Amino acid sequence: MKSHTQATVYNAVTPAVIEELIGLLGASNVLLEHERIEAYAHDETSAEEYGHMPEVVVTPVDANQVAAVVKLANRTGIPITPRGAGSGLSGGAVPVFGGILLSVEKMNRVIEIDYDNMVVVAESGIVTNEINALVAEKGLFYAGYPMSLETCFLGGNIAENAGGGKAIKYGVTGRYIQGLELVTPTGEIVWLGGKLAKDVSGYDLKQLVIGSEGTLGIVTKAIVRLIGLPTARADLLVLFEGPKEAIDMVPVIMAHGIVPTSIEFMDQLSVQTSCRYLNESLAYQDAGAMLLIEVDGTSAEQVEADLIAVGDLCEEHGAIEVYVAEDHNTMERVWSVRRNIAEAFKVYSPVQSLEDIVVPIAAIPDVIPELQRISTAYGMQIPCYGHAGDGNLHATLVKDPQMSMDSWRENQDKALRDLYAVTRRLGGKISGEHGIGIKRKAYLGELIDPVELGLMRAIKRAWDPANIMNPGKIFDLA
Amino acid sequence: MKSHTQATVYNAVTPAVIEELIGLLGASNVLLEHERIEAYAHDETSAEEYGHMPEVVVTPVDANQVAAVVKLANRTGIPITPRGAGSGLSGGAVPVFGGILLSVEKMNRVIEIDYDNMVVVAESGIVTNEINALVAEKGLFYAGYPMSLETCFLGGNIAENAGGGKAIKYGVTGRYIQGLELVTPTGEIVWLGGKLAKDVSGYDLKQLVIGSEGTLGIVTKAIVRLIGLPTARADLLVLFEGPKEAIDMVPVIMAHGIVPTSIEFMDQLSVQTSCRYLNESLAYQDAGAMLLIEVDGTSAEQVEADLIAVGDLCEEHGAIEVYVAEDHNTMERVWSVRRNIAEAFKVYSPVQSLEDIVVPIAAIPDVIPELQRISTAYGMQIPCYGHAGDGNLHATLVKDPQMSMDSWRENQDKALRDLYAVTRRLGGKISGEHGIGIKRKAYLGELIDPVELGLMRAIKRAWDPANIMNPGKIFDLA
Repeated sequence: MKSHTQATVYNAVTPAVIEELIGLLGASNVLLEHERIEAYAHDETSAEEYGHMPEVVVTPVDANQVAAVVKLANRTGIPITPRGAGSGLSGGAVPVFGGILLSVEKMNRVIEIDYDNMVVVAESGIVTNEINALVAEKGLFYAGYPMSLETCFLGGNIAENAGGGKAIKYGVTGRYIQGLELVTPTGEIVWLGGKLAKDVSGYDLKQLVIGSEGTLGIVTKAIVRLIGLPTARADLLVLFEGPKEAIDMVPVIMAHGIVPTSIEFMDQLSVQTSCRYLNESLAYQDAGAMLLIEVDGTSAEQVEADLIAVGDLCEEHGAIEVYVAEDHNTMERVWSVRRNIAEAFKVYSPVQSLEDIVVPIAAIPDVIPELQRISTAYGMQIPCYGHAGDGNLHATLVKDPQMSMDSWRENQDKALRDLYAVTRRLGGKISGEHGIGIKRKAYLGELIDPVELGLMRAIKRAWDPANIMNPGKIFDLA
Repeated sequence: MKSHTQATVYNAVTPAVIEELIGLLGASNVLLEHERIEAYAHDETSAEEYGHMPEVVVTPVDANQVAAVVKLANRTGIPITPRGAGSGLSGGAVPVFGGILLSVEKMNRVIEIDYDNMVVVAESGIVTNEINALVAEKGLFYAGYPMSLETCFLGGNIAENAGGGKAIKYGVTGRYIQGLELVTPTGEIVWLGGKLAKDVSGYDLKQLVIGSEGTLGIVTKAIVRLIGLPTARADLLVLFEGPKEAIDMVPVIMAHGIVPTSIEFMDQLSVQTSCRYLNESLAYQDAGAMLLIEVDGTSAEQVEADLIAVGDLCEEHGAIEVYVAEDHNTMERVWSVRRNIAEAFKVYSPVQSLEDIVVPIAAIPDVIPELQRISTAYGMQIPCYGHAGDGNLHATLVKDPQMSMDSWRENQDKALRDLYAVTRRLGGKISGEHGIGIKRKAYLGELIDPVELGLMRAIKRAWDPANIMNPGKIFDLA
C-alpha cells in the first residue's frame, strides 16, 4: 500500500478519540480490529496500488451521528473518508491518510415511497437496485442506475455521479436526484433541493455536491425521481467495416429523432476476446467493429418501428449487416459478450488499468488509431469498447503476461500520460463516469486548466477549511 | 427607482475609468449618454419598483475585452452588472449599485455548427431561437428554450437556468449546455465542460455557473447540445370538476410511461379572463379546471396512439370531458388562451406581481385554496395557471383597479410573505424558473435554511473576493 501525501498534516486517532466516538455512536458502531477493518482499505481499484488502512471505521445510523463525527474530526484534525459499497473504480473511498473511515452501510432505510410525487426518499446506504425492486409493481423505475446496480449504494452513485449503459436516453445519476440531505464538511445538516422538478431559488448546490466524490460533505438521504418503466425493448446488432464507419453512424441515429436506450460500441479485439472467454461463437465476431443498439418504449409496435427505422438508417449509411435479435435468448447472448469484455481481459491478465475517457462522439474514430499506436509503443493490449452514444470509452490497458511488474508500472504511467494527452487534444476528459479519486489525481492536475483547478480548490477551501472531508481526492490543496 | 444597499461600498465611475474603458474597448463600445443608457436601467420586472441607472454601459465584442473590464472593476472597486436581452423577470440585470453595465449584445456570433457532435457553439449574446432557425433544416433543435425564445439571449437563459412550457419532457436550459466559456469574477477566462455528454473530471462547475444569475462570472460562449426535432405533435384539452381533480391526474399520466411535452394547468378564472380578453368563446370555458396536454414524437401514428392512451387514462380517472384538437386552427385557439392569460390580467390591471412558485406536483391542489384565501385576505385576484407537470405555477397577484398604490404595495408584500410561507410548508421553493434577482432576495433570505445560504455565500466570497460581479442579487454578503 502506497501513501498519498500532501502538505496537510493530520492528527492520529488516539484512545481518547476512540472513547469519544464510542460515546457518540455506541461501541457496535466503532470498529477497530484489523481483520474487521481491512475490508475498508480499498475499493474495486487495485488494493495493492491504491489501498490504505483506516485507523478506525465508524458506522453511524443517522445524520445526527454523522454530523457529530464530522464535528469531532474538525475539532481534532482527523481526516474522514466516506464510503458506500466500495464498488468505486478510482479509489474515492480509500482512506489515504488513515483517520476515520465513515461507512454509510447502516443507513439503508427507505424513508418514503411517494407515488403522488413519483419519488422515493431513501438513506444513502441503500443498494441502488432495491429502489427499482420496490417500485416496479407500480410500473416505475429509477433510471439513473450504473452497471453495478446490484451491489453499489445510492450514496456512492451520488458521490461519483455514476453513469451507465443507458445514459444516452436516460442521463446519469444527477438527473434523478431531486434533493439530498448533506452533512457539510463542518458538520452542519442541510437539505438541498426537494421534491421539485425545477428550482432556481439560489445556486444549484445539490448539483455541485453530486459528483464531488465525498469531498464536499456526506450525503445521508436523497430524494430520487422515478419515471415510467418501459414495457417493451428490442435490440439491433449492426456490423461495420471498421471503427470509423461504426462511430460515424452515431450522430446520424441521434439526429433522426429516435433516442436509443443504448448505443454500445465494440471493436474486433474486444468481441473476439469476450467470445473466447465465453466459449461463444457468433457468426459476426470477425467484423471490424459493431454497434449494439437498444430501443425501449411503452408499446411493442412502436419499439419495433423505431428499431426498423434505426436499422434502415444503418443500412443506408454503410453498415455491412444489421441483425435483429429475434428472441430473448439471442439478445442475451449478444449482451453477454458486451458485458464480459472486461472480465475476459481480466482472465487473460489480472493486471490492468480500466480507463474511462470521454470524448466528443465524432472524435471516437480518432481515438482508435491512437490506442493502436499506444498499444504498440508500450507493449500492451488495449481493447476498445464502451458507450458510443456518450463518447465514453472503457479502454483498458492490459498487461502482457510476459511483461515484468516493474516494466508494467513504468509503461502504464507512460501510456496513461499519452492516452490522456490524446484525449485532451480531442476535446475530451479523463473520466466520464468513474471519477478522479486517487487513481487519476496526478494526471488531472497536469491536464486541467489551472484556472478551473483554482475554482475547484476555492470551493473546497471555503466549505472545508480544516480539509478533513475525504482529503487527497480529485486534487491536493497544497 | 429604489436603491438596494448592502454593506459593500463601491467606487464611482470616474472620468479616468471612462478613459480607460475607451482605451480597452474603443469609444463605440462605451455608452454614457442618458438617453442611450436608460434602456439598460431595468428588465421586464417593473422599472419603477426595480430599476436603477448604470453609470456607464459597455458592449465588449469578445471574451478578452470582457476579461479586461472585469480586471479593471476589481482594481477600481466598481461593480459590474452583466446583461443579456433584458427579458428577465426578477431584476437580475438591473445595475442596482450603478457602476458598469456590461451588455453581451455585440457577442452574438455563431462560432461553429458541429453536426457530427450535434452541438452549436455560439456567443452568449445570440437570440436563443436563432439557434433553432440555423439547425432546423437538419432536423435538429435546441430543446432548452423558454417562452421568450424569440427575444431572449442564450447567455441570459444560462444565467437564469431558464425553463419553459416543455420542460417536463425536455428539461430546462442546464440539460443542454455542454460547455461554456466563462470570464470569472477576477477576470480569468476559462472553459468549463466541453462537447461531452458526460464528464466527472472534477467538480461540475459548469452546472454551478448555470442559474447563478451572473454572480459567479460572465458567460461569453456556450456549447449547446442539439436533439432530433419531433416531426409530429398533437394536443388534448381535458376538463375536470375542479383543480384537485385536474392535478391528481398528473402523476397518473407520468407513471404511465408516456412523457408529454407539456401538461399545462389553467383554473377557471384564468381561462375566463383570457377568453374575455381574446373575445374568444370556448364551449368549455366554464369548467372548474383544465389540463392542456401536448405530446410530440417522430411519427404521427405514435403520437396519436400516445394521445389516445393519455385521453383514455384521463377518462378512467374522472375527467369530465376530453377534447382532441381536430385541426391546427382549434389547437392554436386553445394554446392562445393559455398564452394570453398573463396579458389578459395585465390589461385588466397593469400593476401586478408575476410569481413563479414551484411545489411538489401532488401539492398543487393544496396551493389552490391558499391562493383563494390570500386573494380574499389582501383584496386581489390571483389567477392560477402554469406548468403542472413541473409543479411550477405562475400565480399572479393582480392589483384591483380600485385599490390605491400605497395600499397595493403593503398588501403585495404581505401577500407574498404569506404565499411564500405556504410554498415552503408544502415543500416548495419561491422560484422555479425566473430566479431570485432583486425581486425575491429579501424573501429568500428569510425562508432559506441559513446553512444553505452560508454555503452559497462561501462560494461567492471565494470566487469574487472584491464582490464586484453582479452584487446585490440572490443574497447580500453583509
